[in-house]
Amino acid sequence: MAKKQKKSAKTPSAPLPLSDLLRLPHGPVDLSTLDPRATPGFPGKDKSDAPAATEVIGPELSELQERLYAAGRAAEAGAPSVLLVLQGMDTSGKGGVIRHAIGLVDPQGVKIKAFKAPTADERAHPFLWRITRELPPPGMIGIFDRSQYEDVLVVRVNELVAKSVWSARYRTINNWEAKLAAKGTVIIKCFLHISAEEQKARLLARLDDPSKYWKYNPGDVDERAKWPAYTEAYEAALEKGNTEVAPWYVVPSDRKWYRNWAVAQLLLEHLRALALGWPPADFDVAVERKRVAAS
Amino acid sequence: MAKKQKKSAKTPSAPLPLSDLLRLPHGPVDLSTLDPRATPGFPGKDKSDAPAATEVIGPELSELQERLYAAGRAAEAGAPSVLLVLQGMDTSGKGGVIRHAIGLVDPQGVKIKAFKAPTADERAHPFLWRITRELPPPGMIGIFDRSQYEDVLVVRVNELVAKSVWSARYRTINNWEAKLAAKGTVIIKCFLHISAEEQKARLLARLDDPSKYWKYNPGDVDERAKWPAYTEAYEAALEKGNTEVAPWYVVPSDRKWYRNWAVAQLLLEHLRALALGWPPADFDVAVERKRVAAS
Repeated sequence: MAKKQKKSAKTPSAPLPLSDLLRLPHGPVDLSTLDPRATPGFPGKDKSDAPAATEVIGPELSELQERLYAAGRAAEAGAPSVLLVLQGMDTSGKGGVIRHAIGLVDPQGVKIKAFKAPTADERAHPFLWRITRELPPPGMIGIFDRSQYEDVLVVRVNELVAKSVWSARYRTINNWEAKLAAKGTVIIKCFLHISAEEQKARLLARLDDPSKYWKYNPGDVDERAKWPAYTEAYEAALEKGNTEVAPWYVVPSDRKWYRNWAVAQLLLEHLRALALGWPPADFDVAVERKRVAAS
Repeated sequence: MAKKQKKSAKTPSAPLPLSDLLRLPHGPVDLSTLDPRATPGFPGKDKSDAPAATEVIGPELSELQERLYAAGRAAEAGAPSVLLVLQGMDTSGKGGVIRHAIGLVDPQGVKIKAFKAPTADERAHPFLWRITRELPPPGMIGIFDRSQYEDVLVVRVNELVAKSVWSARYRTINNWEAKLAAKGTVIIKCFLHISAEEQKARLLARLDDPSKYWKYNPGDVDERAKWPAYTEAYEAALEKGNTEVAPWYVVPSDRKWYRNWAVAQLLLEHLRALALGWPPADFDVAVERKRVAAS
């Protein structure tokens, strides 16, 4: 494939690949040891540098996304796809990441799905049925706002199914993700890690601003009361789901500006690793040039 | 509803509403009298002012889109939606508009559908069946890259059905759009108007740049040979589809920078006209504040 760049890539790299810095090590997970206010790899001093740092990602991210899309158009079944999974407590910023990080690329190349509580129809099927239907086609970037992991998170915490059922799901998810990766889907799983104090501040902020009332749900306070149980469930999901082909990234998310930059940067690094060129012409360029000129 | 603005709206208005300037007058349409290189209403001198003009639209467009989305979340069936229909000859820039104009808003609030040649299954249904399924839900902005009008354009030009069939479709489309508008969908139909010379230049540009080969389709030259027949079909579709509730806008599109700005501005003006506030709280704010504070 042609390697010619459409625009020169001027993006300076983060000191280390962020994928290395945020990748969860294998083994037991203790979230209390991971600082939600940390800013690893950020190429600047503080919040004031965030707009510039994110802006610098934009052009390269945009071009790499276009190459992926072009590959999908040219080769369909053979082209890769990307799946970005966003998980995190309420107010951790899944929506904010989509707005600010995914908003950097062409919306035509993105397929976004927010998973809510399953419908009666969905519950009548195996839990991965509704997830599989929303996977990105070749050439596309799929974004999951919540995901297959809800079936071992909210389901486990609220005992919506028997322990024997949810405890078997970790392996089911591992196998499903392994098959997906083998078929050419790059899986990027991000846990947006916030502190209980930050969640409280964000809930109060929604109540202080009439333009944010619509984001507030009284039920969120009931879920907040189960913070320790959710933490335990997340630690299990992160540990058991942390495979070679589909590792977890823990994104410190108490600082929104870091979180948005970090997810954009993770996406950029994974797209770079695909090393996609532009699809070659499947027609005779000289012949076509004459046809157009004569038209 | 609360009218408080989240951010102050600093966007200077175009001299006249662009909706007035680009709205197609009623009556017979002669595209040869409409200049595809014109730049009506553009608040600047030339291309060099386009990035700033488009940037200035961004924040207000983004906030109005969020209000629409919030209305959809709060009131579902009762909330309005927006449908942006993009039509135009090959290379007129339907994809470019989505990338640059629609790229200004939160991708979570946008539902994009590109209509290709209908499948066997779709052809077994009335022609509006597949269109209806892709309409935006309340609170969403739907983008149609090609639309119901293909059934009186490519179908008419290539005689894919009998004249008696396609000629009845104008009225069917009018009635369908009228019902849609009555149910609360704001319909913005844009014809991206390019010249035959500009199309030739854009096709040649795709053949001169290996990063654009994937956009080139030899079949486009065959369609280009039918330019007069397409012009006639477009003139009929524009005239007959130009109703009060779903008027056509003719967007001069030989200059890409004008085209992208103009569609963003049209979308902005239609969202402004909805005059949406933020949904009121459906809970007791004081009670919830205490609950969160105690949590």
